[in-house]
Amino acid sequence: MPQGKPDVVPDDGLTTRQRRNRPLVMVHTGIGKGKSTAAFGMALRAWNQGWPVGVFQFVKSAKWRVGEENALRVLGASGEGGTVRWHKMGEGWSWIQRPPAEGEQSHEDRAREGWEQVKRDLAAETYRFYVLDEFAYLLHWGWIDTAEVVQVLRDRPGTQHIVITGRNAPPELVGFADLVTDMSKVRHPMDAGQKGQRGIEW
Amino acid sequence: MPQGKPDVVPDDGLTTRQRRNRPLVMVHTGIGKGKSTAAFGMALRAWNQGWPVGVFQFVKSAKWRVGEENALRVLGASGEGGTVRWHKMGEGWSWIQRPPAEGEQSHEDRAREGWEQVKRDLAAETYRFYVLDEFAYLLHWGWIDTAEVVQVLRDRPGTQHIVITGRNAPPELVGFADLVTDMSKVRHPMDAGQKGQRGIEW
Repeated sequence: MPQGKPDVVPDDGLTTRQRRNRPLVMVHTGIGKGKSTAAFGMALRAWNQGWPVGVFQFVKSAKWRVGEENALRVLGASGEGGTVRWHKMGEGWSWIQRPPAEGEQSHEDRAREGWEQVKRDLAAETYRFYVLDEFAYLLHWGWIDTAEVVQVLRDRPGTQHIVITGRNAPPELVGFADLVTDMSKVRHPMDAGQKGQRGIEW
Repeated sequence: MPQGKPDVVPDDGLTTRQRRNRPLVMVHTGIGKGKSTAAFGMALRAWNQGWPVGVFQFVKSAKWRVGEENALRVLGASGEGGTVRWHKMGEGWSWIQRPPAEGEQSHEDRAREGWEQVKRDLAAETYRFYVLDEFAYLLHWGWIDTAEVVQVLRDRPGTQHIVITGRNAPPELVGFADLVTDMSKVRHPMDAGQKGQRGIEW
């Protein structure tokens, strides 16, 4: 079982305390399951530390991840742990007064609006832990410029941790991130015609 | 983004409804991060369905996963969603009246006691969603017989979902499970001498 001991102690001039509080960029990519699920599992630890947690869900369907969303909302409102704000592209971002009707705005434009808000929140240090769910797709598709994302993340102030999920995370992001896990599929019930199940897939 | 559509419809004589409620055995293995974290993320969905959730933590340290544990305890006590029971080997299993003192009982014996309770709970259908955290190690080490585990899981009654985490899941278990995800490490901060961080590792 993991002991949390590093193999080498780096000669980076940082104290142990500084290394213990280093702001991290984490990427969960690959074709297997568990990328987002593990990100929301991490959000539980952040919540438990009393940190403000911000979730930006870059997916079309507003119903996706409803289990995780309900759980984190209950936790955020429990009076214990940190606060939780959950933003969904699928139902129109919460900070937009009048969300455009279906067809009025492209998926791509809505995705960019989400990223603009992430940039504002990073500059303002609104949260201490960010989940950018399915964000890697937008980079892969070229809707958002990966070089800009890396620069914004590199220059972010304070101690803000970010976890980005999605297949096909671009190499520039993988190269920049502090922690990258590739979830690979060994076997999935849908291979055998299994349908998605409540409590399991959502 | 995943659509939840199977590639093939199986000729198994089951209705869609039956396939939607098929009890699943899931395994998160590999050397990367996210195995347990994703299992606890799945537990959020089970909780949201109102299912009784049972966690069996087969790790020596009682402090491990404290963030996830606190979060699931708050959720279980919230009056929304399902109940949560969290059992820890590290502080002596909760169902044992007088936990043996340190050194009085081997790690291996304590692990076996945990598995015996899991068997009783499966027979009684105590929970609908089980997390057997770090259980794969015990099978790998030969402390618990994998063939017995597979048989007990195969014969379990009702609709009980089980997720097993840990490195080195034995091939017999991987072959039996419905869903297997291998978390592989692409990069980890501890490689660069980064120490474990609160809010991130626990």
